[in-house]
Amino acid sequence: MKILMPIGGALDHENPHIMREFVERSGGAQARIVILPQASALAETGSHYVHQCLSLGAGQVISLEFRQRHAADTTENLDAIEEASGIFFTGGAQMRITQLIGGTRLADALYRAYLRGCVIAGTSAGASVLSKTMIAYGKSGPTPRERIVQCSPGLGFTDRFVFDQHFRQRDRWGRLIYVVCTHPGVLGIGIDEDTAAIIEDEQHIRVYGKGAVTILDGRTISESNVAEVEAGRPVAVGHLTAHVLTAGCTYDCVNGNAHITVVPSLSDE
Amino acid sequence: MKILMPIGGALDHENPHIMREFVERSGGAQARIVILPQASALAETGSHYVHQCLSLGAGQVISLEFRQRHAADTTENLDAIEEASGIFFTGGAQMRITQLIGGTRLADALYRAYLRGCVIAGTSAGASVLSKTMIAYGKSGPTPRERIVQCSPGLGFTDRFVFDQHFRQRDRWGRLIYVVCTHPGVLGIGIDEDTAAIIEDEQHIRVYGKGAVTILDGRTISESNVAEVEAGRPVAVGHLTAHVLTAGCTYDCVNGNAHITVVPSLSDE
Repeated sequence: MKILMPIGGALDHENPHIMREFVERSGGAQARIVILPQASALAETGSHYVHQCLSLGAGQVISLEFRQRHAADTTENLDAIEEASGIFFTGGAQMRITQLIGGTRLADALYRAYLRGCVIAGTSAGASVLSKTMIAYGKSGPTPRERIVQCSPGLGFTDRFVFDQHFRQRDRWGRLIYVVCTHPGVLGIGIDEDTAAIIEDEQHIRVYGKGAVTILDGRTISESNVAEVEAGRPVAVGHLTAHVLTAGCTYDCVNGNAHITVVPSLSDE
Repeated sequence: MKILMPIGGALDHENPHIMREFVERSGGAQARIVILPQASALAETGSHYVHQCLSLGAGQVISLEFRQRHAADTTENLDAIEEASGIFFTGGAQMRITQLIGGTRLADALYRAYLRGCVIAGTSAGASVLSKTMIAYGKSGPTPRERIVQCSPGLGFTDRFVFDQHFRQRDRWGRLIYVVCTHPGVLGIGIDEDTAAIIEDEQHIRVYGKGAVTILDGRTISESNVAEVEAGRPVAVGHLTAHVLTAGCTYDCVNGNAHITVVPSLSDE
């Protein structure tokens, strides 16, 4: 099974329930986990996650610390990805990941790892890069507006979704609606902090964590003026479908029909 | 063989050499061509191309004239795409295409048509939509700058390339360089007016027409500050590879190694 695990940032390090789920899905004591800290400007980010995953029982964990394109494609790095059962992209700035790794042999190896069932997780910037077109940066606010969001090519494990993170905390409804209006075939997935959307085979989504996952399905849009609106003006859209799902809820998207299971509020604490 | 045919806009209607190539590659007298005029705000765009393709010897040509999402998925439209040997997206505004067709069953049918060998052509806006991440709009100028370009999800036949059009005429080096810096695995294809890049199996590119096709290969980039630069400032980049290819030149991209054939200038007139 192919598994993507985008996380909304601001992981709770006191109660690392999301990272525990990642370690368990990667194989627990048998896990071979690779951390990719390139999004972060801090030198210690990689080793922080290495220690955390080890403390949560992961068998092997390494961080690939390169910060130059020419250092991406070493035999050591490529072998680590080939053997990984779980890969984790840290937070920071998403374009640091794509400009360093995009177009390398390592990028090809990462995609092969995804296809063979290696869990591909990422938090904040690390969640954004998982899609073919990613939100690179943008503005906050509830209303979709022209130029509210800047997209660029993501690392690209899937073209079914576009991910936004810190969703409720940074007030990002407007920018995610905008992207879905531009292409209603792309499901918008807005993920709150310390929350994960676990996506199996690009089809079945399970919500995990403290906050909500907001799913914007544009396939029902009757019309919008997104192609015409200019100069920062608000965008009009009709019949956008939105789901706000909390821990334990699931979303199934088969042949364009969504099946939602909403469960009562759960406490992880 | 899968064939994409992005065209740089401003087709010469006196000497329709590009459209003739499209009709011939679609099967000539046996061709079943479908025009998709949704990018255009002009009611007569579809019928113009229908008449032109018929005058160039195409067997059957129709234009699908819907302008509402709910009108995309008629049996008539879906059957036309299933039977098409050539599909042509007209110019206009690329987001009109993606917001109308993205997420419809017609979009799925278009992708299946591409996979079975139907020629997928588009001019100007119609060229932009061919990629997974597309340039939606932007500014002119030779220097890549933060916010010079706005991307959004394209109709998405390929994630290997991003296409820009009216390339030399509208001075678009800066914005195409910017996109390639953000993800150096995406080949930037800048197409001049009345010029086509014919792409076979996402690998072999042949240039056809009056102008040039500019290919920006970011895989050689040593470093850039695209992830750090702010507020409209210029982006620095080292070791970007550029090719400027004219009619008859070919570009082969196998396993990351480009093979270029440059031929002496040809005249189409």
